[in-house]
Amino acid sequence: MKRLILLRHGQSVWNLENRFTGWHDVDLSDKGRDEAIAAGELMHAAGIAPDALYTSVLTRAIRTGFMGLDVLDRLWVPMIKDWRLNERHYGALTGLDKAETAAQYGDEQVHIWRRSFATPPPALDSDDARHPRHDPRYADLDPARLPATESLKDTLARVLPYWESDLVPALERYPTLLIAAHGNSLRALVKHLEGISDEDITGVEIATGDPLVYELGDDFGVERKYSLRENT
Amino acid sequence: MKRLILLRHGQSVWNLENRFTGWHDVDLSDKGRDEAIAAGELMHAAGIAPDALYTSVLTRAIRTGFMGLDVLDRLWVPMIKDWRLNERHYGALTGLDKAETAAQYGDEQVHIWRRSFATPPPALDSDDARHPRHDPRYADLDPARLPATESLKDTLARVLPYWESDLVPALERYPTLLIAAHGNSLRALVKHLEGISDEDITGVEIATGDPLVYELGDDFGVERKYSLRENT
Repeated sequence: MKRLILLRHGQSVWNLENRFTGWHDVDLSDKGRDEAIAAGELMHAAGIAPDALYTSVLTRAIRTGFMGLDVLDRLWVPMIKDWRLNERHYGALTGLDKAETAAQYGDEQVHIWRRSFATPPPALDSDDARHPRHDPRYADLDPARLPATESLKDTLARVLPYWESDLVPALERYPTLLIAAHGNSLRALVKHLEGISDEDITGVEIATGDPLVYELGDDFGVERKYSLRENT
Repeated sequence: MKRLILLRHGQSVWNLENRFTGWHDVDLSDKGRDEAIAAGELMHAAGIAPDALYTSVLTRAIRTGFMGLDVLDRLWVPMIKDWRLNERHYGALTGLDKAETAAQYGDEQVHIWRRSFATPPPALDSDDARHPRHDPRYADLDPARLPATESLKDTLARVLPYWESDLVPALERYPTLLIAAHGNSLRALVKHLEGISDEDITGVEIATGDPLVYELGDDFGVERKYSLRENT
């Protein structure tokens, strides 16, 4: 049996400050670190020992995975980071205060950017310091692949090929696979695994710091799904 | 220019307890964690930004590398762990108190085991719980490759092929490469890079928590070598 464990990182410093984050590399808050440790303790109590960690190239997800594995005494497992597990790119909203953005653009417009499936926020100019082309962690990538903004649909369009190309082979090699990532990159995986519609996926919330376990059959179909926090 | 940065982990809990460690997976002490942070600060002050981390599969080295990169805000770089960067395997001495071992075998014998080039300590039986075949982190390896004890010569015999097969190609891809490892696996690299003799290498000490920088030419010959702690 293969097990996929999806772990959404907890509170970041910008969650606290109520700012749009996306690809900006903010760290976990103290509460977020506590959530990562608690997630490790839930896995420990459930006897789940990941064979590998896949995570994004953003510190808050990397640290969540690392701290979870640390609780399990499994820092020695392979840790693979990939930009395709990053959070949705929030475009020109990146770094803006959510309340100020609502005052400027109106609540309805901000609601659309946050909750619609296919409408991205305004794109960043390529010379904007926030554009990923200026970030050394993406220096080896073809700049044409780097988003200047993303809708949830756009996020899916990079996560799902990564599922096929990297995560499915990873599950063949590492039967218990931990993915420490973000609300929207994990939503893409949940949508695919559960066959959720475009309309419904925007309403699906993944709890932070609560390992979500999918038991998968040989064809990678979901045989059982449960949350460790609810299950204990 | 390529730069190789060798970082020896600092104090572990067993250093404190004066026990032979080798492949036993003891963690850093609080002092060892402080040393890792200080090493990160030395790299930061020197403007050294590693493009990747290579480390062993032992927690004290992994944590040293992670904490160093954390200071540099570079947790997003690739982190590759390999058993061939492990500490020398201490055989049947693993876990024993150094003073008790000297009382049992005599100071001279223990000195030989610790300081000779080619004399390994007694081997572990394969059914000894301390033998690496019982450790899940080596489960994917051919058991014939796993040591039951090692001299420094034996350690070299696994580190040097790894230099050729993995570290040289890594330096081609990641021109500033951080290796967080152990006294004897790093000694193997220093011996090779500096052409030190079998007789002399046993007397070479590598300071803990002090990044040792090798600037390498296109042929991987050493053009300059300096320690960050001494240099600042």
